[in-house]
Amino acid sequence: MFKVDIEEGLYLHLIEMPHAHDLFTAVHHARGHLRLWLPWVDSMQTVTDYQPVIHSWLQQFADGRGFQAAIRKNDIFAGVVGLHEIDWGSRKTSVGYWLSDAFTGQGIMTKAVYTVLKIVFEEYQLNRVEVKCGINNHDSQAIPKRLGFQYEGIVREGEWLYDHYHDLVQFSLLREDWYRYHGE
Amino acid sequence: MFKVDIEEGLYLHLIEMPHAHDLFTAVHHARGHLRLWLPWVDSMQTVTDYQPVIHSWLQQFADGRGFQAAIRKNDIFAGVVGLHEIDWGSRKTSVGYWLSDAFTGQGIMTKAVYTVLKIVFEEYQLNRVEVKCGINNHDSQAIPKRLGFQYEGIVREGEWLYDHYHDLVQFSLLREDWYRYHGE
Amino acid sequence: MFKVDIEEGLYLHLIEMPHAHDLFTAVHHARGHLRLWLPWVDSMQTVTDYQPVIHSWLQQFADGRGFQAAIRKNDIFAGVVGLHEIDWGSRKTSVGYWLSDAFTGQGIMTKAVYTVLKIVFEEYQLNRVEVKCGINNHDSQAIPKRLGFQYEGIVREGEWLYDHYHDLVQFSLLREDWYRYHGE
Amino acid sequence: MFKVDIEEGLYLHLIEMPHAHDLFTAVHHARGHLRLWLPWVDSMQTVTDYQPVIHSWLQQFADGRGFQAAIRKNDIFAGVVGLHEIDWGSRKTSVGYWLSDAFTGQGIMTKAVYTVLKIVFEEYQLNRVEVKCGINNHDSQAIPKRLGFQYEGIVREGEWLYDHYHDLVQFSLLREDWYRYHGE
Amino acid sequence: MFKVDIEEGLYLHLIEMPHAHDLFTAVHHARGHLRLWLPWVDSMQTVTDYQPVIHSWLQQFADGRGFQAAIRKNDIFAGVVGLHEIDWGSRKTSVGYWLSDAFTGQGIMTKAVYTVLKIVFEEYQLNRVEVKCGINNHDSQAIPKRLGFQYEGIVREGEWLYDHYHDLVQFSLLREDWYRYHGE
Amino acid sequence: MFKVDIEEGLYLHLIEMPHAHDLFTAVHHARGHLRLWLPWVDSMQTVTDYQPVIHSWLQQFADGRGFQAAIRKNDIFAGVVGLHEIDWGSRKTSVGYWLSDAFTGQGIMTKAVYTVLKIVFEEYQLNRVEVKCGINNHDSQAIPKRLGFQYEGIVREGEWLYDHYHDLVQFSLLREDWYRYHGE
Repeated sequence: MFKVDIEEGLYLHLIEMPHAHDLFTAVHHARGHLRLWLPWVDSMQTVTDYQPVIHSWLQQFADGRGFQAAIRKNDIFAGVVGLHEIDWGSRKTSVGYWLSDAFTGQGIMTKAVYTVLKIVFEEYQLNRVEVKCGINNHDSQAIPKRLGFQYEGIVREGEWLYDHYHDLVQFSLLREDWYRYHGE
Repeated sequence: MFKVDIEEGLYLHLIEMPHAHDLFTAVHHARGHLRLWLPWVDSMQTVTDYQPVIHSWLQQFADGRGFQAAIRKNDIFAGVVGLHEIDWGSRKTSVGYWLSDAFTGQGIMTKAVYTVLKIVFEEYQLNRVEVKCGINNHDSQAIPKRLGFQYEGIVREGEWLYDHYHDLVQFSLLREDWYRYHGE
Repeated sequence: MFKVDIEEGLYLHLIEMPHAHDLFTAVHHARGHLRLWLPWVDSMQTVTDYQPVIHSWLQQFADGRGFQAAIRKNDIFAGVVGLHEIDWGSRKTSVGYWLSDAFTGQGIMTKAVYTVLKIVFEEYQLNRVEVKCGINNHDSQAIPKRLGFQYEGIVREGEWLYDHYHDLVQFSLLREDWYRYHGE
Repeated sequence: MFKVDIEEGLYLHLIEMPHAHDLFTAVHHARGHLRLWLPWVDSMQTVTDYQPVIHSWLQQFADGRGFQAAIRKNDIFAGVVGLHEIDWGSRKTSVGYWLSDAFTGQGIMTKAVYTVLKIVFEEYQLNRVEVKCGINNHDSQAIPKRLGFQYEGIVREGEWLYDHYHDLVQFSLLREDWYRYHGE
Repeated sequence: MFKVDIEEGLYLHLIEMPHAHDLFTAVHHARGHLRLWLPWVDSMQTVTDYQPVIHSWLQQFADGRGFQAAIRKNDIFAGVVGLHEIDWGSRKTSVGYWLSDAFTGQGIMTKAVYTVLKIVFEEYQLNRVEVKCGINNHDSQAIPKRLGFQYEGIVREGEWLYDHYHDLVQFSLLREDWYRYHGE
Repeated sequence: MFKVDIEEGLYLHLIEMPHAHDLFTAVHHARGHLRLWLPWVDSMQTVTDYQPVIHSWLQQFADGRGFQAAIRKNDIFAGVVGLHEIDWGSRKTSVGYWLSDAFTGQGIMTKAVYTVLKIVFEEYQLNRVEVKCGINNHDSQAIPKRLGFQYEGIVREGEWLYDHYHDLVQFSLLREDWYRYHGE
């Protein structure tokens, strides 16, 4: 599998079709936790439900519009981090992520997003990265805060979650922030 | 042509291929003014440059992902107002617009955007509409302010404009705002 | 919705996906009447049957190959009028139409087709429009006759109607006829 | 090549990419004659102009929408006969044809069209075949007349020919005509 | 149908959609025999199973990537012979074939493949044709041997056959072999 | 970039659009050497010539039909190794590779192909891998020989190389060979 190393025992990899089962399992065991903030959890009920999703992610990668990567801890599928579309005209993108509950509270996602930011600013040479988190999802908001993102505002009723809209907090990190905080 | 009436002598219409010449002319006569805030002006140099653009707009309409409409004042092509993609999952969209300089200062755009909002909330039954304006583009910002949009924050370096990034001001209007301010 | 006004209380509009229910209802209430002359009535049994049809109509519009428009009387979906493919090489097209039985006998279709002809000759600048009607469908034939179309001949067994072929009467109107009869 | 035999020394075959040169040559040597009645002659100036045309013909065949076949006399490319779209709903089609001038006046086209009609009625089991000829193209009209087609009417200004519209004469042959005149 | 004559009472023809029933029948009556060497037999259980297959074959032909042809003996569908993709860069292809058991042992396939080779070398002007046969399929191997193909080697476990891999024997014939053995 | 580590200072990575320049440079500096055995070298003359190629490689990856990977030595683009289509029905594929001349003779390619074989047999669980080398390309043949591939035969005139056909030597490695030689 094609990987990006984070640290000993922790890496990202592109999600290929043979990983559908691992992806399903990671979501399935954390449904109760994940559906609090992710709108697609309830609609994914079998391994085969992930096949068109994985194909669309690989198509996104093939078209240079971003990527979705698995996070593996000691080779176990722990979560996903990825880019929502790259706007090459304005050189900006946004990052999304989730972690199965067995892996939270260990700093894994902060390192994973940091690794994605390195790709985004240093390889793709983008200028701006956005993160949007549920207004009550404090664990999720902790990630951009730790990584030097700046708060920009509240996106009112920005997402539908099964039976209600919830507000999103919007953060951003600019290329100049990245190089100031994280050095060359 | 397929229209939405605004008031006597003022209407929107879907832009079809035969309107390429009118569109070119409206942009061409206002280049100096429009390129201050629109990133695509310099790349449109001939009538035929608009043909793939018009086709992509009609394709967007055909796919139920929004529309781009001409604004005509006394049958003259005065500008464009449209939706950037509809997110049907979260029932939200954003509105963009521009006016050729001969038509500014007459309240035309406020009425045009109001008309688009009626479609968005009453026909498409969306829940949230966003507008993003250049931070120094005070004329543009006046539109959402007049129509009851709420300020949400600054999108730092949100757009590349030929030789520099500029910040965008983000506004939103929710379905509940619409019905509160504009009645049923 | 994007409209073409005919007269007070009567207009055409492009049929978008949210109109599927109104379209279904209009056909459903007039099945017995419509299936006498329209070959597709029996195969349309649910609202969702109309979704691919509406998408193909919007695709036709997006590709500049013509359009299908709803006819609304006092905002009620009364019928459909549209173009079967535009032949841009020879600048010709043909018109088709149907009306739910509650709306027949009021001159609605004559006005609707007149409005379509205005678009065809004045906006699209086509040269020839054809209408084909069932040989025993005298109500349908009355429309082109009233609008100055000329009889051209009988298309023998031109259409399959569930369990038999029927002959079609072919009429045409040329650009020069249009301007002679209907003025500039 | 995939053929349909007509008689000793005379056959039809599907036009594949390697036949582009023969097709170009056949048209090129008869330009003056062919452009009197065919609207596409002037736009075909090189062998490679025929490549997208041949591909679209093969695509038509692959999709079951008809075919375009070369007519070869003693292995020389003499002309083309083909079907313009098959309407499977109403089981009808129309036939078009042209012959390079070195091959006219020998009954070749009558035999070629007869062979196409056999395919259309006996293999594809269609019900109706149409032929439209220029009103002054008496050589072309002779073909359907000889084969038992019935005159249906004049399609006024049915085709644009470089600098003018011309009228078309419409003929048809029904399945019942075919079996009456040409036996089982 | 578009044919290539082999000899009196024996011909190839392109397989069009209306031939799906004949194709199904030919396979169905010889299932026990065919499934010994063909991996797709068990998955084809109804006439409609062949429709996407026939469409993909016609698409292959339309794209100039080869063809699949029926073999008819006295107008009865006896088997199929075809090309697996043409590599135009290296001007090579490979041939596959099968015969319903009622038609084996009569030299039919040798003549059919010979006819395909004539097309491949003389019309398409390819340089190399490959045949791969099951290592225990002696009937199949007899064809390339009779036609002057040269043995090249064993493709170990080259094909999965329902429940096991089997080895394939690879043969080839070059353009120079063809003209040496079969003359100009 | 998404990598597969080989050893300290040596890795594979998927080739994305931003790597077009590195790929061009690697080929350009080794043209004289590479064109001896690779048929595509002469047609690639600019960086932009590689853009459609890279897109087709990423599309292959997205569709689960294999991948093309850069080989980097100390972060310098040294060559490419990849799979030519995966046949999932028979669970087989073939491997191709080239190295810029500055990197030959160091065992790099043997290690790179070994790494690809690990993916092919252990992740994709394929059953058979083929390698074809020019008959006089002894450096290339050394790779499969070193890795336990078995000689299967000579593919006569298997490839066109600018002005002549050359023979290819075919090798294969089966899943059982892999696990016998390289252990679990």
